Amino acid sequence: MNQDYIIPNEWSIIEVGFDKENVKSSESLFSIGNGAMGQRANFEEQYSGPTFQGSYVAGVYYPDKTRVGWWKNGYPEYFAKVLNAPNWIGIDVSVNGEALDLNTCSAVEEFKRELNMKEGWYRRSFIATMPNSVKVSVKATRFLSLDLDELGVIKFELTPLNENADVVFKPYLDSGITNEDSNWDDKFWNTTSVVSEGGQAFIEAHTMKTHFDTCTFMEASIISHNNKGPEQENCTELRVEHQYRQEVKKGETVILQKLGGYTVSRNHKSDQLIQAAKEVLAKASVLGFDKLLEMQVSSWSKIWDMSDITIEGDVKAQQGIRFNIFHLNQTYLGTDSRLNIGPKGFTGEKYGGSTYWDTEAYCIPFYMATKDHKVARNLLQYRYNHLEKAIENAQKLGFSGGAALYPMVTMNGEECHNEWEITFEEIHRNGAIAFAIYNYYRYTGDYGYIPEMGLEVLIGIARFWNQRASYSNAKKKYVILGVTGPNEYENNVNNNWYTNYLARWCIQFTLEQLAKVKDGYRADYDRIVGITKLNESESEAWLEVADNMYFPYDEERKIFLQQDGFLDKELITVEDLDKSQRPINQKWSWDRILRSPYIKQADTLQGLYLFEDRFDLKEIQRHFDFYEPFTVHESSLSPCVHSILAAKLDRVNKAYELYLRTSRLDLDDYNKEVEEGLHITSMAGTWMSIVEGFGGMRVIEDKLCFTPRIPKEWEAYSFKVNFRNRILKVRVTKEETNFELEGNQEMSIRCYGKRLVLSPTKSVSESNAFA
Amino acid sequence: MNQDYIIPNEWSIIEVGFDKENVKSSESLFSIGNGAMGQRANFEEQYSGPTFQGSYVAGVYYPDKTRVGWWKNGYPEYFAKVLNAPNWIGIDVSVNGEALDLNTCSAVEEFKRELNMKEGWYRRSFIATMPNSVKVSVKATRFLSLDLDELGVIKFELTPLNENADVVFKPYLDSGITNEDSNWDDKFWNTTSVVSEGGQAFIEAHTMKTHFDTCTFMEASIISHNNKGPEQENCTELRVEHQYRQEVKKGETVILQKLGGYTVSRNHKSDQLIQAAKEVLAKASVLGFDKLLEMQVSSWSKIWDMSDITIEGDVKAQQGIRFNIFHLNQTYLGTDSRLNIGPKGFTGEKYGGSTYWDTEAYCIPFYMATKDHKVARNLLQYRYNHLEKAIENAQKLGFSGGAALYPMVTMNGEECHNEWEITFEEIHRNGAIAFAIYNYYRYTGDYGYIPEMGLEVLIGIARFWNQRASYSNAKKKYVILGVTGPNEYENNVNNNWYTNYLARWCIQFTLEQLAKVKDGYRADYDRIVGITKLNESESEAWLEVADNMYFPYDEERKIFLQQDGFLDKELITVEDLDKSQRPINQKWSWDRILRSPYIKQADTLQGLYLFEDRFDLKEIQRHFDFYEPFTVHESSLSPCVHSILAAKLDRVNKAYELYLRTSRLDLDDYNKEVEEGLHITSMAGTWMSIVEGFGGMRVIEDKLCFTPRIPKEWEAYSFKVNFRNRILKVRVTKEETNFELEGNQEMSIRCYGKRLVLSPTKSVSESNAFA
Repeated sequence: MNQDYIIPNEWSIIEVGFDKENVKSSESLFSIGNGAMGQRANFEEQYSGPTFQGSYVAGVYYPDKTRVGWWKNGYPEYFAKVLNAPNWIGIDVSVNGEALDLNTCSAVEEFKRELNMKEGWYRRSFIATMPNSVKVSVKATRFLSLDLDELGVIKFELTPLNENADVVFKPYLDSGITNEDSNWDDKFWNTTSVVSEGGQAFIEAHTMKTHFDTCTFMEASIISHNNKGPEQENCTELRVEHQYRQEVKKGETVILQKLGGYTVSRNHKSDQLIQAAKEVLAKASVLGFDKLLEMQVSSWSKIWDMSDITIEGDVKAQQGIRFNIFHLNQTYLGTDSRLNIGPKGFTGEKYGGSTYWDTEAYCIPFYMATKDHKVARNLLQYRYNHLEKAIENAQKLGFSGGAALYPMVTMNGEECHNEWEITFEEIHRNGAIAFAIYNYYRYTGDYGYIPEMGLEVLIGIARFWNQRASYSNAKKKYVILGVTGPNEYENNVNNNWYTNYLARWCIQFTLEQLAKVKDGYRADYDRIVGITKLNESESEAWLEVADNMYFPYDEERKIFLQQDGFLDKELITVEDLDKSQRPINQKWSWDRILRSPYIKQADTLQGLYLFEDRFDLKEIQRHFDFYEPFTVHESSLSPCVHSILAAKLDRVNKAYELYLRTSRLDLDDYNKEVEEGLHITSMAGTWMSIVEGFGGMRVIEDKLCFTPRIPKEWEAYSFKVNFRNRILKVRVTKEETNFELEGNQEMSIRCYGKRLVLSPTKSVSESNAFA
Repeated sequence: MNQDYIIPNEWSIIEVGFDKENVKSSESLFSIGNGAMGQRANFEEQYSGPTFQGSYVAGVYYPDKTRVGWWKNGYPEYFAKVLNAPNWIGIDVSVNGEALDLNTCSAVEEFKRELNMKEGWYRRSFIATMPNSVKVSVKATRFLSLDLDELGVIKFELTPLNENADVVFKPYLDSGITNEDSNWDDKFWNTTSVVSEGGQAFIEAHTMKTHFDTCTFMEASIISHNNKGPEQENCTELRVEHQYRQEVKKGETVILQKLGGYTVSRNHKSDQLIQAAKEVLAKASVLGFDKLLEMQVSSWSKIWDMSDITIEGDVKAQQGIRFNIFHLNQTYLGTDSRLNIGPKGFTGEKYGGSTYWDTEAYCIPFYMATKDHKVARNLLQYRYNHLEKAIENAQKLGFSGGAALYPMVTMNGEECHNEWEITFEEIHRNGAIAFAIYNYYRYTGDYGYIPEMGLEVLIGIARFWNQRASYSNAKKKYVILGVTGPNEYENNVNNNWYTNYLARWCIQFTLEQLAKVKDGYRADYDRIVGITKLNESESEAWLEVADNMYFPYDEERKIFLQQDGFLDKELITVEDLDKSQRPINQKWSWDRILRSPYIKQADTLQGLYLFEDRFDLKEIQRHFDFYEPFTVHESSLSPCVHSILAAKLDRVNKAYELYLRTSRLDLDDYNKEVEEGLHITSMAGTWMSIVEGFGGMRVIEDKLCFTPRIPKEWEAYSFKVNFRNRILKVRVTKEETNFELEGNQEMSIRCYGKRLVLSPTKSVSESNAFA
């Protein structure tokens, strides 16, 4: 049974009732972020029950020593991890001398959490009966400002309900924090100053080894009582605490406002972090909670205006998609090309490295369509900036001559993961990076990126594939031996079809771009040839490999095989597998998983998804019918691709089932791990499964094309896309699809293959082709 | 270039000249042991240069927490490691107030180490000029008694050469020791008492978690000066030290005798360890150094009488084989079925688990032929005792119904290794354990072991193979997917020929033994059926698998393929591989090794070696010619098997080249790792490469058969074997082979296929068939 305590609601994530078992799960689900920082939904006041504390600053990581059993040549020395940063949200609360702690209260009533996605804030309220029998009503509201992205704001309201109370608030900063996933109990932070002055407090701490300098800051006041300041300010080695005392009458409400956050050396000089923090506090104090919240609502409104997807008639589906879009925007806003999208965003520690192939394969389409194209360009540039490190990485594995292998997991371009079957063998990631360049150009029309930066990346990648393929005398073809495909439930296989196909495509695409750039951007071409030392004979060798690549194929079923030997497996479908054995990654030993036919996430089908224009519908259907029944979807990245393909095959019920799974993966905790954080990157896949899946949106020959379908559970759905700076709103009902164009230029699109000319003044509707 | 500082000598390992670079290497090579304990050749006196300290007690291990990067279901919780035990050999020496330390001496002359293998002692001598200009001559002789196997003896002689000297000896015990390979800086030992009384000292320490109790003890006296006892006895928390002072005239020699060793709870009650130590010391004191040494020489003489191999005309080869035989006997004497043969013996920490498949595949033939058959039976019984744990181990991996998978590495029957590609997939080890049962019966004729214990083991193993094989609809055969063969440079391959062949053989052999036991040992049969809950239909299922096992085969070359897809590799032979790339396990990343054709150790050829009677010579030759050129022999277990096969193919030069490599692997440090310890188990392979290789000894239909050959470098060689309690001495010269039988019964053998009847009274010679 999946988790089901989240209350369905169109715009909010809501939990009602206090259950200690749900605390860690809710800490993940109610996480807030603003692209520059983020945090789990930890309580402000003390909580002595099980909790997973986490507050994270974008781009601040630590190279923890790698922990491996048996070292293999080529392993990275370190594993980059997201660091839990000093705590700024803490407010110790005591009432009549007793500490408020929900774990020790004799009763907790009317407990409610709400994450208001529309307005970008998080609130928790409850009535607690404390061990000393004082009954208090509490409401704590918190948000991380989009406008002042170094600032977080807390409004903590407390009302004694059954007697007058002596309330003491001790808001604090604390740099004595730890990481749950620490390998060696290393100390990650060096605290260099703990300062308290004039009601403000600052802790300067820098990360060891990586030397990120941060200032964690706060300023609080009792805004219900003349903005009263602190009575006492106490500093210890790693902590600063201010004390506020207020006599509160029964039924009266005392409100503490706490401003806090981080200034960091990525954005300021290291010796000016306190000064920068003071400036943030000054601005914020003038504005105050209400005005800051008003700005927050307005900024989120702008984001929603462009990126919202509405679903009518299905609250859970609506909640799911908004939850996904909300978290994607909390994680990455696209304004800083030094940043990227970590699979857990600001909601947990696991997969400590920031960047996986998820960014290219799943996130870029979302950001391309819902933001200015510069955002996707920033994401591409992140890899361009790391090209040299990718070449070094390939050298460590024995490649030469400028061959580039991008890391599986990285913070700064260096590989920081150490399972040989992944790090050394899951090389298809290189192809996703090349495909993203093609995809970006196809969608945005911004060809300039290729001569400017993309072509160098492509050359490095083509060189890698050329060296990585080897000639099989037995097959008289080029083969790629010893790889792990996207389906990580197979390791060290030969001729993974997806990898071979992608390798060939990378070479072909690179050769095309070389010709195009040589033709149209001669100066760039000469510069690139100079930098890369490319010579003519190289591209001949590439072509030889591409033209003679081997693809495992079953003549009988007329399908490509996931890899050599796939048909030797015991082909028992997931349906026929005892439910007690699921999820297999928690129930089975690794060897059993490997020799089984079960597929973790789309592999051959991932290739058919990326290159669907090269296969006819019957071919796609045959592959879907063969592979999907073996797919366990134990990767968060799996259901979305299958949902899109199912929609394309007009299997809307199947597409809907898979859509629910992707969109509510975390809300319903399908994989029983939401406590550890959310699956941020796969959330972009959810967006794709509506826009590309049900909406059937594609770019063909520079035009947007749609093939809309609608699940029977929905009355209507709508989304907006930014295509080459034209904003198009698409609304699909059971009967028809309606297109509305913003701006002042005409635009022609296709719907069900039919050309439609849209003008900004009037909307155009097209009857549904599928009933 | 291999190491070459060891002086060739027929009976001794000799190092001349002091080179700090060689200290760790010599600490391994000059290790001593007596089956019950052993130690690296660390200096008695202080040494401040690089050293690897190690003293080990048989069967004393520690379950260190496993260190892995990414946990996989089924991994063991701990990794058993051999523990460095408290030091009993230490003697701090000072002369005129200056500490003797070879690392700080201004000159070290006439430095010599000798490991006298014939007599079983180790001596180090030198003349050192100390920083205070005192020149001393030192001779330290040490042995671990075979007769009192808890006792070690040191005679430390010192002569001041250029002035009278005030000599202070401080022999000590120290339990403040560490392991080089500690994963987590855990403390392994708890010291519970440090006692010094009447010139004797005792440290009681027990291992944490495993609770092995030990008493480390010593007693010293200046035997050159009236057996003078200590002036002072000092105890601290983890150490006890006695002080002896002696004025010594220039040219006069002072001699300290130190007796020491361990009593352990495997052999005594825990509260009687000190008492037991006192008894050992009492006996030893009465005997004294000279008598103890005389007994040592006599005991080693008995061992050599049975197990020596002579080689005439090739000192290096002679030294090599004796070095191997000596270390095997130092490591394991076969008297205790709780013990086994660790790959590093008492010479280092690596491969901390005691038992690998090496025991069955390599060591048992040596012990069968050179000891009473009870020794080999003890080794088999070790696995019988662990059958229940092997069944548990298989259960952890999803097998059921009494299927047994023996661990890859173990101390107590539990698996304690955690690379998935080894632990979960290198399952051929199960076959080696079954084969050893067959081999034992074939050689000793002791069928009784099978109904008594062996059959239960065989049933567990057959059940495993039956479940582990799966039916391939594509091949219409049973396949074994996802394995690692003996060649660990391939992981997760399908249909490793060796594994498939062994699996089929295991099932067939088990079914034969079931029938035989049912027929001839009905009570045992009934008992076993009761214990194992075996039913008839089970064996039908096994037969179905065995009869329909798939074997990858190349029709063109007429060879079995190491695994599916082997011919897709780039088949560049080792000869054509740039030397700078060797050894590939130090130069290449793991993925590159895996996709290469290079073979770490015999794999397909291991099968042809074990089952040579099922293949004709041409077939063996084809496989040897195909696979050997791709073999890098980067496992110590590789050259011996190839040497045996080469001899069989009458390629005596090749056999000789491989023989040198196996016999001098450590002496010449082929794999550049001798510092870490010696390769004990592969030493048995060296023995096999003479007896089975050049001697061509086989057991066929209950008879010993020989096909002798001799390398052109040798004048003659000889060996002895115990075959069913008959002792046969075989001497091969360039012209003929001579057989001499001990005892008083006739025996018929075959030589070059010809039957010879041997009688104890006269030797029989047969002219060589190969010139």
